[in-house]
Amino acid sequence: MSVEDVLEKYKAGEVDLTEAIEKIQSNYFQDLGHTVVDHNREQRTGSGEVVFGSGKTAEQISDIISAMLDHGSNVLVTRIEADKYKALTGLPTFSTYDAATAMLSCVQTKIPPPETSIAIVSAGTSDMKVAEEAAITAEFFGNRVLRVYDVGVAGLHRLLARLDELRQARVLVVVAGMEGALPSVVGGLVDKPVIAVPTSVGYGAAFDGMAALLGMLTSCASGISVVNIDNGFGAGFLANSINRL
Amino acid sequence: MSVEDVLEKYKAGEVDLTEAIEKIQSNYFQDLGHTVVDHNREQRTGSGEVVFGSGKTAEQISDIISAMLDHGSNVLVTRIEADKYKALTGLPTFSTYDAATAMLSCVQTKIPPPETSIAIVSAGTSDMKVAEEAAITAEFFGNRVLRVYDVGVAGLHRLLARLDELRQARVLVVVAGMEGALPSVVGGLVDKPVIAVPTSVGYGAAFDGMAALLGMLTSCASGISVVNIDNGFGAGFLANSINRL
Amino acid sequence: MSVEDVLEKYKAGEVDLTEAIEKIQSNYFQDLGHTVVDHNREQRTGSGEVVFGSGKTAEQISDIISAMLDHGSNVLVTRIEADKYKALTGLPTFSTYDAATAMLSCVQTKIPPPETSIAIVSAGTSDMKVAEEAAITAEFFGNRVLRVYDVGVAGLHRLLARLDELRQARVLVVVAGMEGALPSVVGGLVDKPVIAVPTSVGYGAAFDGMAALLGMLTSCASGISVVNIDNGFGAGFLANSINRL
Amino acid sequence: MSVEDVLEKYKAGEVDLTEAIEKIQSNYFQDLGHTVVDHNREQRTGSGEVVFGSGKTAEQISDIISAMLDHGSNVLVTRIEADKYKALTGLPTFSTYDAATAMLSCVQTKIPPPETSIAIVSAGTSDMKVAEEAAITAEFFGNRVLRVYDVGVAGLHRLLARLDELRQARVLVVVAGMEGALPSVVGGLVDKPVIAVPTSVGYGAAFDGMAALLGMLTSCASGISVVNIDNGFGAGFLANSINRL
Amino acid sequence: MSVEDVLEKYKAGEVDLTEAIEKIQSNYFQDLGHTVVDHNREQRTGSGEVVFGSGKTAEQISDIISAMLDHGSNVLVTRIEADKYKALTGLPTFSTYDAATAMLSCVQTKIPPPETSIAIVSAGTSDMKVAEEAAITAEFFGNRVLRVYDVGVAGLHRLLARLDELRQARVLVVVAGMEGALPSVVGGLVDKPVIAVPTSVGYGAAFDGMAALLGMLTSCASGISVVNIDNGFGAGFLANSINRL
Amino acid sequence: MSVEDVLEKYKAGEVDLTEAIEKIQSNYFQDLGHTVVDHNREQRTGSGEVVFGSGKTAEQISDIISAMLDHGSNVLVTRIEADKYKALTGLPTFSTYDAATAMLSCVQTKIPPPETSIAIVSAGTSDMKVAEEAAITAEFFGNRVLRVYDVGVAGLHRLLARLDELRQARVLVVVAGMEGALPSVVGGLVDKPVIAVPTSVGYGAAFDGMAALLGMLTSCASGISVVNIDNGFGAGFLANSINRL
Amino acid sequence: MSVEDVLEKYKAGEVDLTEAIEKIQSNYFQDLGHTVVDHNREQRTGSGEVVFGSGKTAEQISDIISAMLDHGSNVLVTRIEADKYKALTGLPTFSTYDAATAMLSCVQTKIPPPETSIAIVSAGTSDMKVAEEAAITAEFFGNRVLRVYDVGVAGLHRLLARLDELRQARVLVVVAGMEGALPSVVGGLVDKPVIAVPTSVGYGAAFDGMAALLGMLTSCASGISVVNIDNGFGAGFLANSINRL
Amino acid sequence: MSVEDVLEKYKAGEVDLTEAIEKIQSNYFQDLGHTVVDHNREQRTGSGEVVFGSGKTAEQISDIISAMLDHGSNVLVTRIEADKYKALTGLPTFSTYDAATAMLSCVQTKIPPPETSIAIVSAGTSDMKVAEEAAITAEFFGNRVLRVYDVGVAGLHRLLARLDELRQARVLVVVAGMEGALPSVVGGLVDKPVIAVPTSVGYGAAFDGMAALLGMLTSCASGISVVNIDNGFGAGFLANSINRL
Repeated sequence: MSVEDVLEKYKAGEVDLTEAIEKIQSNYFQDLGHTVVDHNREQRTGSGEVVFGSGKTAEQISDIISAMLDHGSNVLVTRIEADKYKALTGLPTFSTYDAATAMLSCVQTKIPPPETSIAIVSAGTSDMKVAEEAAITAEFFGNRVLRVYDVGVAGLHRLLARLDELRQARVLVVVAGMEGALPSVVGGLVDKPVIAVPTSVGYGAAFDGMAALLGMLTSCASGISVVNIDNGFGAGFLANSINRL
Repeated sequence: MSVEDVLEKYKAGEVDLTEAIEKIQSNYFQDLGHTVVDHNREQRTGSGEVVFGSGKTAEQISDIISAMLDHGSNVLVTRIEADKYKALTGLPTFSTYDAATAMLSCVQTKIPPPETSIAIVSAGTSDMKVAEEAAITAEFFGNRVLRVYDVGVAGLHRLLARLDELRQARVLVVVAGMEGALPSVVGGLVDKPVIAVPTSVGYGAAFDGMAALLGMLTSCASGISVVNIDNGFGAGFLANSINRL
Repeated sequence: MSVEDVLEKYKAGEVDLTEAIEKIQSNYFQDLGHTVVDHNREQRTGSGEVVFGSGKTAEQISDIISAMLDHGSNVLVTRIEADKYKALTGLPTFSTYDAATAMLSCVQTKIPPPETSIAIVSAGTSDMKVAEEAAITAEFFGNRVLRVYDVGVAGLHRLLARLDELRQARVLVVVAGMEGALPSVVGGLVDKPVIAVPTSVGYGAAFDGMAALLGMLTSCASGISVVNIDNGFGAGFLANSINRL
Repeated sequence: MSVEDVLEKYKAGEVDLTEAIEKIQSNYFQDLGHTVVDHNREQRTGSGEVVFGSGKTAEQISDIISAMLDHGSNVLVTRIEADKYKALTGLPTFSTYDAATAMLSCVQTKIPPPETSIAIVSAGTSDMKVAEEAAITAEFFGNRVLRVYDVGVAGLHRLLARLDELRQARVLVVVAGMEGALPSVVGGLVDKPVIAVPTSVGYGAAFDGMAALLGMLTSCASGISVVNIDNGFGAGFLANSINRL
Repeated sequence: MSVEDVLEKYKAGEVDLTEAIEKIQSNYFQDLGHTVVDHNREQRTGSGEVVFGSGKTAEQISDIISAMLDHGSNVLVTRIEADKYKALTGLPTFSTYDAATAMLSCVQTKIPPPETSIAIVSAGTSDMKVAEEAAITAEFFGNRVLRVYDVGVAGLHRLLARLDELRQARVLVVVAGMEGALPSVVGGLVDKPVIAVPTSVGYGAAFDGMAALLGMLTSCASGISVVNIDNGFGAGFLANSINRL
Repeated sequence: MSVEDVLEKYKAGEVDLTEAIEKIQSNYFQDLGHTVVDHNREQRTGSGEVVFGSGKTAEQISDIISAMLDHGSNVLVTRIEADKYKALTGLPTFSTYDAATAMLSCVQTKIPPPETSIAIVSAGTSDMKVAEEAAITAEFFGNRVLRVYDVGVAGLHRLLARLDELRQARVLVVVAGMEGALPSVVGGLVDKPVIAVPTSVGYGAAFDGMAALLGMLTSCASGISVVNIDNGFGAGFLANSINRL
Repeated sequence: MSVEDVLEKYKAGEVDLTEAIEKIQSNYFQDLGHTVVDHNREQRTGSGEVVFGSGKTAEQISDIISAMLDHGSNVLVTRIEADKYKALTGLPTFSTYDAATAMLSCVQTKIPPPETSIAIVSAGTSDMKVAEEAAITAEFFGNRVLRVYDVGVAGLHRLLARLDELRQARVLVVVAGMEGALPSVVGGLVDKPVIAVPTSVGYGAAFDGMAALLGMLTSCASGISVVNIDNGFGAGFLANSINRL
Repeated sequence: MSVEDVLEKYKAGEVDLTEAIEKIQSNYFQDLGHTVVDHNREQRTGSGEVVFGSGKTAEQISDIISAMLDHGSNVLVTRIEADKYKALTGLPTFSTYDAATAMLSCVQTKIPPPETSIAIVSAGTSDMKVAEEAAITAEFFGNRVLRVYDVGVAGLHRLLARLDELRQARVLVVVAGMEGALPSVVGGLVDKPVIAVPTSVGYGAAFDGMAALLGMLTSCASGISVVNIDNGFGAGFLANSINRL
């Protein structure tokens, strides 16, 4: 029952004071609650719903997808490995699964893309999985994505050759493992927001992405911010949020 | 000599092939070089120049400021402690120094602000210095700044009471030390980009900002990215970059 | 032989001085010893015995359970995976095994619950396993448990909607992974003791629970203390200890 | 305006629907707001207000103390070094300053103590400062405190000699630096809640309290929880909260 | 050719000066070389040879054992898992394999034990594997070993009950995981050298033995030194070295 | 189109000014581009191409090898496990695979070795895999390699006996795990560049090579530099680069 | 009252049962108590008392010294800086202060030295302070000390030249900072117990002694154990304990 | 007595067999001893002696310098702060002190430089102190040094503009703080050995050079090795060693 309804019913004497206060409070939080907030968000930003698949059972995920689709939302499931994906039930025909990134998209309503595009830049072939997680996320939210892969700083010419492309994007996601130097170099070449994603690619002193993470946080270039190690989804989500401003 | 000039001179036979190639190369990098890039950037974004004062002498800083002002730029110097500030020479009358943040601004050309504003949110009074570094940086680049201070998560009502204000900003900088939980909460309440700034406020297991940094990187909310510990400048710079998109 | 008996026997000349001193000493430590202390504790607090299953063989665990049950105690075994559980011998009919938390309870004497209850609060579905370890532990010791799950800080309304419930508990166990911000928020909303449990849920900079642990230790809220990562048992045990004061 | 008032006014037609919804929302959060919550808390628990002095100016602290005293609260200021203390203005005659712990108490209304007492146990003389911070905090909130100092595990007999005293407390705060083993030993000897406080006492591999912190978190005894390094205040506050249950 | 032989040959004119110097040098290092040093050591200390099995193939280990046995040495192989043990060839009939510690002993010459004994003390049942590695090593070198297991500090009475035994040993190896507090307590009760062995037993903030290691290094008791995490062999070897002084 | 061609065409009026500038820029970066740089490098240094096999699929690696061989290069693939190696297609008959180091070499053009040689020194048998990665890399680039294995510092005589050999090398790669002390000792005995390679050999406080890495970085000997943990390839590559100066 | 006395008095009816049990218990712990244990220890081992000066006031230290001297003990105070030393009162004429190590010895009864000696070996001149702390401690307890300083592994010849001396000691303390490799080399050259002391000497990746500490813990030589960073006192104390066996 | 002398005396019957062996052994190590090795090194490499000034007294340093100069060596003292420098006695007139790097050079014999040069490259002005330590060290050993300063990766054009210079050096020292990305970029542009020097420049997640150190160790470019944080001397020394090959 909406706040408006409560107020009307109270005015009409259909609920007493105690009951009205109680309903308003629960309603109010419903106004702030999961469903309401989500609808508002989706209307404003073209966002769909995202489910973090890791740590949930196939049954739980199947339920969540059904509920969301019924509600009219698009649904993106991240980190759902092939075995778990195969155990899902009731998937719609329009769902697509990407085994390399372990992502499942169910898009029932195509979202019109913004004019501007998001560049996803990656340092090496091993970083591609994380870069694709960012790219697929950004595309799920209806963005145009420009992929610029395998342009690590040890082969600078490869990066410089694609500089014009990079400069056309409205926001850049830069993905790198090992020493994570690529965002610093890109950040010095463009004047757009750069979202840096450290990956766990590397061995030894890479410490599962720690070296790249620290490198990106201490970057000598301005206009860079960082998300968690391997968090391609987070970068793609944020890039969409910036691209739709 | 610009690339155009070299080409003209070469056509006119005033320089030979070897010399022309050499000049073009050096010129080309000048085209990408410090001054050129800076002018382009400033024309597009309204940015001025920023000098990181820490680790430079008063003489060096004085020289840099003079050169930049002569070039017509606004100049912002960060992390310049009072003693070093007092040793500067040749400062213009329109320069202003803020002792609390150790920042010096020299604005000779007021920049028209974007329509939208940047919210700077801080958790506690001890985080205010870093928050102000972000705020002054954003204002230096001509932005409207909304300060929402002392709204840490242990007193949630203080934050919720100002929710409408937060939701009016185009981009939010959220500053917190200790456990650094504020960006997660804010990120769950707004659908705009959130730039999280961990501070070194705290003691013991805060490990000079490490606890806040890790907390922000692993936030359960989406749409958040993180800059270095105490890096108010970086957050303000990035916020400007997003606000001007 | 009790200290009293030794004294009587010595007085009666049945043991000589050397022997008496020796017996008193060993007896004295028996007065402080395993069995004695356990009986006292159980009589006072209604506690049963708890066995940490990890690192013990099925044979060892079977032996311990038998001995304890013979002694009249209730027995709780934690961290006993399904394979090891199946290899146990001589289990009583009244034993119950919970596969999700890998816990085995053998309760032969139902303990009357205290008037007050313990709230177990968790941030996400992935934290549920640890939360349930705390809940089952608290219930094993005869407490009423209120489960408030999946109320992480990124969806604040979900937490606020259940605030009244939280405020009715005498002590709260708050379980969270990733940035571990939930105890700070809960600690600011209630004025009861909060036991924070960091979980190893998360990836990258979560560092297997380190981020949550540091966050909870440096919480800006008062009245919070922390147990080891994933230590649901410890939190449930301590909550019982507080609830029975 | 309270929720009730808004409802009445709306019924009476004095506010329209939009305004009513708006007022209810702001009111609701005011119900959760700073002042209200604080007064409630103090009435229920006998607590006064606590100010963390570190990182605030003498002026700010003077203002806060005045406001709180005017409101009728007792005030405790922690981590206020002697120089800052001397710069305070307008202190009441009944304020007392303890230089060793850098704490200032202003108690205008003596709080009747609970029947039960809190034991503060410390391992070595160097840990005494943190132990006293806990003790003074507990006393500020009106508790009876039993000090058991300098009973580290390397001289076990000193601890055992005072065992009866320890067992009479309702809750124990155990303070230790270096390897931080004391809470494990105490936790095995009593069946009351133990709040462990690691201190930064030690050198080398003590890593400013890290060794003690890790030791306490991984304690082999049950019924122990941990607060931040050197956080005597937090332990005293929590002990009061438990002692008043 | 031995140094003596070279000198004789040089005196006899069979080698010239340059050649003699060269041969002496290479010979000299052979005098310090593997075999020579080993013989000396074994004669003085009763030691046999020890092979670290981890990271060597079954073939390599078989070869080494054969060579050593031929030379008359006793041989101890540590960290040789059951699969690798089964793949060994040419083992003598007097060899014994302990699957729990993954150790293989081949003792062809029984060594007379010193008068004094070595105590091996462990905190919990999970630490027993490491404790046994120390015990078997000490016994391999011919020592009398006193096992005092499962006497962790959370059940102090168990330790105190066996104090007289502990005090009879000439040197003590104390093995503990989790918070590693046992060596501090033992070190305060005896005045003999204590060799502390942290184990990787524990979870979460135990950090695979780091908590125990730091705790032992910062012990408040004197007369304690520490070996690597899980290094039962190293402790047993050192205890033998001290016991034979 | 080369810079020279652009200039000629511009002089001839075949391209206009805008087009000329654009072509020069893209051309300039092509002058720095992948192929050109590689050909130059191979001509100067006798290097072939190296592929990091880890994180690439068998298909990708097969493609890369084919392309490189067609171009006339030798190819070295590192970290390609046996399963992936077996899945490769189109390998030439002259390729050789080393299962112990997981390296694949395809040498179609034998490179004449420099006069001088590279010594690869290792501390223990468990370090041999990394040492061989360095040795095979150095040999792939046509160097003479002197292997000096199993000469760890705990058996100093073994190292000293081979000192003359070490001193004949032009550059030394020194490989060690555990405490990583060997480079310090070798560095004090020779006056040639020493490349230290920490390995992940060890357990407990070895922290997967961290102890060795820190030890080598803080070596008290001069003339030592360090590569990543287990990075035999990097050391062999650098040694070749120095040996060919 | 001793246990014997209590028994006699109880037999004689002078104390009743309750009182007897109580007295026995307190007496028992007094048998383990501070004074008793200390006297026993001193009689058996020739030890005096040691006071850790850091974190105690000059007044406290003066009091402790007086009490101990009155009791007939020798007293050693460690880590007492010059300023604090000068503020001591009532020092006897036979006290000696060493400013370099900040140690104060008050020896009223010379202790006859054991036949055997302790070698203190240090790597560099900067490690000398810690080495001297070990040496002075060992001498305070009446040992003969052989100093072998500045024999770090980068100049191996210096160490080898003094090998015979090292081999004459019964136990060795080996002190080293930076990479801490010296104990491994010494441990491979002698067959006596080696106590390794990491120092905080070094910079950068030495991490205040962490590199040396990890290196020593993971030493490839057997017969080595480790004390805390800079803990010369602990090493000297343990060496005495071993030398007096 | 030299080995030759011993052999002659033995042949002549002046020493017996036992004595001869003993003398040869001690003599042999003198052949490897301090002076001999140093003279050999200097004759071969043109090196002088280097003294690490930190942690030595002015008196000690004065003595060492005198002894070395008397021996004919050049002397370089590193990390000798101005106060200590001023307290030195007996310095020759040809000594020069550089306050910015705290280095003192005493060159009595100019060393002819190699044909080739060493490039010292630094990322920012704050890294200059470390870069100069490398440069002065290289020059002390007689090398030609090319300084390329302030060419950090965020302003790539500055680096590219000086590429030809970089490519003329035989070996490069690359100095960078913060994220330490410069060596990766330089390593991809040149095919000469690159010695990377991380500096402690930066704040927050730079962790006193840790971020730069990890970044350099995990560099995606080949041909790079790393020295300790801020170890300009070590890099200069190694560069000389490579440049003189």
